[in-house]
Amino acid sequence: MRTRVAEMLDTEFPLLAFSHCRDVVAAVTNAGGFGVLGAVAHSPERLDSELTWIDQQTAGKPYGVDLLLPPKYVGQERGGIDGDQVRELLPQEHQEFVSELLIRYGITVSNDDQRRAQGRLNISPKGYEPLLDVAFGHRIRLIANALGPAPADLITRAHDHGVLVASLAGSTQHARRHAESGVDLIVAQGTEAGGHTGDVSTMVLVPEVVDAVAPIPVLAAGGIARGRQIAAALALGAEGVWCGSVWLTTEEAETPTVVRDKFLAATSSDTVRSRSLTGKPARMLRTAWTDEWERSDNPDPLPMPLQTALVGDAQLRINVAAAQPDSKAHELATYFVGQVVGWMDKVRPAKAVVLDMIAEFIDVVELLKGVVA
Amino acid sequence: MRTRVAEMLDTEFPLLAFSHCRDVVAAVTNAGGFGVLGAVAHSPERLDSELTWIDQQTAGKPYGVDLLLPPKYVGQERGGIDGDQVRELLPQEHQEFVSELLIRYGITVSNDDQRRAQGRLNISPKGYEPLLDVAFGHRIRLIANALGPAPADLITRAHDHGVLVASLAGSTQHARRHAESGVDLIVAQGTEAGGHTGDVSTMVLVPEVVDAVAPIPVLAAGGIARGRQIAAALALGAEGVWCGSVWLTTEEAETPTVVRDKFLAATSSDTVRSRSLTGKPARMLRTAWTDEWERSDNPDPLPMPLQTALVGDAQLRINVAAAQPDSKAHELATYFVGQVVGWMDKVRPAKAVVLDMIAEFIDVVELLKGVVA
Repeated sequence: MRTRVAEMLDTEFPLLAFSHCRDVVAAVTNAGGFGVLGAVAHSPERLDSELTWIDQQTAGKPYGVDLLLPPKYVGQERGGIDGDQVRELLPQEHQEFVSELLIRYGITVSNDDQRRAQGRLNISPKGYEPLLDVAFGHRIRLIANALGPAPADLITRAHDHGVLVASLAGSTQHARRHAESGVDLIVAQGTEAGGHTGDVSTMVLVPEVVDAVAPIPVLAAGGIARGRQIAAALALGAEGVWCGSVWLTTEEAETPTVVRDKFLAATSSDTVRSRSLTGKPARMLRTAWTDEWERSDNPDPLPMPLQTALVGDAQLRINVAAAQPDSKAHELATYFVGQVVGWMDKVRPAKAVVLDMIAEFIDVVELLKGVVA
Repeated sequence: MRTRVAEMLDTEFPLLAFSHCRDVVAAVTNAGGFGVLGAVAHSPERLDSELTWIDQQTAGKPYGVDLLLPPKYVGQERGGIDGDQVRELLPQEHQEFVSELLIRYGITVSNDDQRRAQGRLNISPKGYEPLLDVAFGHRIRLIANALGPAPADLITRAHDHGVLVASLAGSTQHARRHAESGVDLIVAQGTEAGGHTGDVSTMVLVPEVVDAVAPIPVLAAGGIARGRQIAAALALGAEGVWCGSVWLTTEEAETPTVVRDKFLAATSSDTVRSRSLTGKPARMLRTAWTDEWERSDNPDPLPMPLQTALVGDAQLRINVAAAQPDSKAHELATYFVGQVVGWMDKVRPAKAVVLDMIAEFIDVVELLKGVVA
């Protein structure tokens, strides 16, 4: 496939695969795509070991790293907040709601455990600078920023290292701001995507963003899990695609089994945009967890990063408890996923997913020729 | 353009244009597309005169008619309800809220006027049978049903007249039900569409529906207003497209000027799915009207068809009042429109819109060939 993005990233297929799992990143990169490791949850030491492993597995092929640098978050005026400060900012009402919710679904937690867990946090410049130091020590070709415009110092550092910068945008207004910040690529992400999204669909957003940020190349994200959708994205003016959800049910993914099985069974109508995991609207599987947070008599989610601190440990406990037979906790289990979850109906190797996508893409272009001819 | 839908409808471009305005239907049909007249709001006499006019204007070219036959509505157990019965079913609280809302935005209405207006209604088998009698007396090629599965008697009557039947679906589950009912075409309509929609995007819904209802041909709807989006729809597996919003700002449209100007100024982020006009979720421009109905201290919209009866006259009054300079009623004015409203930035003849769409479609297919080559 020949597009500017394929050339810039030096990849056979301009098919970017976002994953928190190094095995997916390596498998997609080796299959001719371009893996991007979601690094925000990693410690610098862990990130260093993951990237070293990817370097070894991919034999010189380029890949990328994704960070979450939110433009607005609680504590930004002091350059981020640490675990003790976060704990002080979690309202009693919210802590009690989460404890009571876990108990109601058969999960018991001591208060001490819960308070300790709520100290873990890594979402501020204090958290990401050490990750950048590690990333630039490896053979990365791209740094992607999943929320808000990329900070100027990040772009300068990346370009000094010969690394490209991509920013995700859920609206044309945000895409324009990213373009002004000097990024090399813009990912136009439709509302159907998993994770943090806006409310405009890929079909509408991509051509708008392409026109608004030209000549910066655009990747389409949201609703892309098969070759038909790659062809549609390129028809809309994108020069590559960014996929996340589809890798969650690959053999290489570390998705908890209970969540993976829910994904395999779900239809495209089974997702919801909810603030219940991070404090910002993010698409995920609709389960008892999202329903509970939507009930008007329950507290509203907290702003980023407090909600993550509030519920992060509860999520781990839910997935452990949900794996037990006949557990009520099973009803709560959820994770970020896009509407393409309806298409994800069996576990396959990431390489097979890539090759099937490309094969269908080529067939579809052939079909389109026939429509015009 | 060669697709099965183009052959079935005997049209040059499988580009279906839904409009309540006969001038749009004729203009699109004459430009090589296929106009579909939204007939639900018409009396049988008015529909007869509209279709006679279209027959004369289009010189033998085929066109269609769209009806709204909801599968579930208040009063269906008695075969529909008339105006007097509807008035009895409108709660006092709702009537007072609408009156008070109009007053708050500078529009005065007598209670008698309002009660009289709330008797007008045409959304039940009692309403649509006479419309079908009229439609089958004209040179129509297609009847489309915008809500729920087409009734069996409608399909039989249509096929007896050599008329094809299309049903709109907002989920794959609904599309399967339509396929079983024996319709000839299925319109897979994404959440980004104007009017009644589900919550799955076009990008995700279309390939799912294509696979689920094969070999029945599928039209894509939602997010389609330019050639790039037609190419994307065909890449997704559709064999034609169904567009509604884009005609609302054409020269031929009868959109109230105040609403048209709001559409021209709006971005793709300015729509919302709201039950405030019909009782079922429908996408429209977000204005003070939709905001007022979303406030938790105001009443919830009524079920179909009561909400239409409740607010239909208020909508007419709002548009009249909004046309006055500096009127506060201007804030309320809204209408059904999809997220493509962001692309609609000038008034153009419908023919020019069609020809630009087709020209861009052809260019995009040419570009895609280059990506694979």
